[in-house]
Amino acid sequence: MKLLEDRIMQDGIVLPGDVLKVDQFLNHQVDPDLMMAMGKEFAKLFKDEKITKILTVESSGIAPAVFVGLQFHVPVVFARKNKSITMQNDLYSASVYSYTKKVENTIAVANKFLGENDRVLIIDDFLANGQAAEGLFKICDEAKAEIAGIGIVIEKSFQKGAELIHKRGVRLEALAKISSFDGDQVHFED
Amino acid sequence: MKLLEDRIMQDGIVLPGDVLKVDQFLNHQVDPDLMMAMGKEFAKLFKDEKITKILTVESSGIAPAVFVGLQFHVPVVFARKNKSITMQNDLYSASVYSYTKKVENTIAVANKFLGENDRVLIIDDFLANGQAAEGLFKICDEAKAEIAGIGIVIEKSFQKGAELIHKRGVRLEALAKISSFDGDQVHFED
Repeated sequence: MKLLEDRIMQDGIVLPGDVLKVDQFLNHQVDPDLMMAMGKEFAKLFKDEKITKILTVESSGIAPAVFVGLQFHVPVVFARKNKSITMQNDLYSASVYSYTKKVENTIAVANKFLGENDRVLIIDDFLANGQAAEGLFKICDEAKAEIAGIGIVIEKSFQKGAELIHKRGVRLEALAKISSFDGDQVHFED
Repeated sequence: MKLLEDRIMQDGIVLPGDVLKVDQFLNHQVDPDLMMAMGKEFAKLFKDEKITKILTVESSGIAPAVFVGLQFHVPVVFARKNKSITMQNDLYSASVYSYTKKVENTIAVANKFLGENDRVLIIDDFLANGQAAEGLFKICDEAKAEIAGIGIVIEKSFQKGAELIHKRGVRLEALAKISSFDGDQVHFED
């Protein structure tokens, strides 16, 4: 998606350890018009998939996910990392390690929000090592929900997440695919 | 806002301790069409306020906030609770106690995203004791940003948050104002 690639070129900052900082428009400050454009792009890609639910994980997945949900007019569920007192029993959960935060989180979804009649589109901001994706797959498996696909805003194609999803046979669409970083330069796949 | 009040009547669950559970459409599962309608309503209420930025706090504030930002075509900043390695120095921060999670969080905003030229509209899902609002006020004060107003999805008018905001002289608009709970019944202000 050219609009997104241009924005990454303009505002993305490459940090040591192959980390791309996009806090200018995606995961701290958010550009809602860009999110809307991305929501429409994901909806176009997955339009024939009979999606009944969008699934993401707090916090950075929420903004892109709600605009996809808006296009499909389906509910958006975000897996929670911090259990609220309003979240009681009957949860599907998975353990997810975050490389950027260096912490292991338990993510959870109330089981009333996901079930065997759902065709789920998973949306997330980044795909790197695929930890969050695997956690969300596990939650869908527990719920016996069908995974229709996974839509990623920025894929770091040189890390193992994409391979892992392909092996599982899940359809993966990314709006920007980064093939490598070269100093402070970002290279996209053709 | 009748659409929201009807939804609270239909799907809200009153828990002990005057806690209203709205995970069906607001803070775990999200109804994107309702969020869009709320975004338009907030934009109508604050249309003359020359808003330059929307400020909220992760995670439950993000969905309502991005749809307000979409109407005004301005950036949405969400204060972060968990410091990422991509978040470095130069932060405005505040300490916020959550009654529903029984934890004290430090919330932070990178100072490049908030400054003295901003007129900020704060958006959040709930107003109860006003802890999150006070934390966001402190962050705006540190940034020397002007607070144009605060827009709340659900205000529990019988708790002290609303009073606290009025005392500070900040314009407060809530889309649903709950005057009391009576067993499992929700009563709205007229």
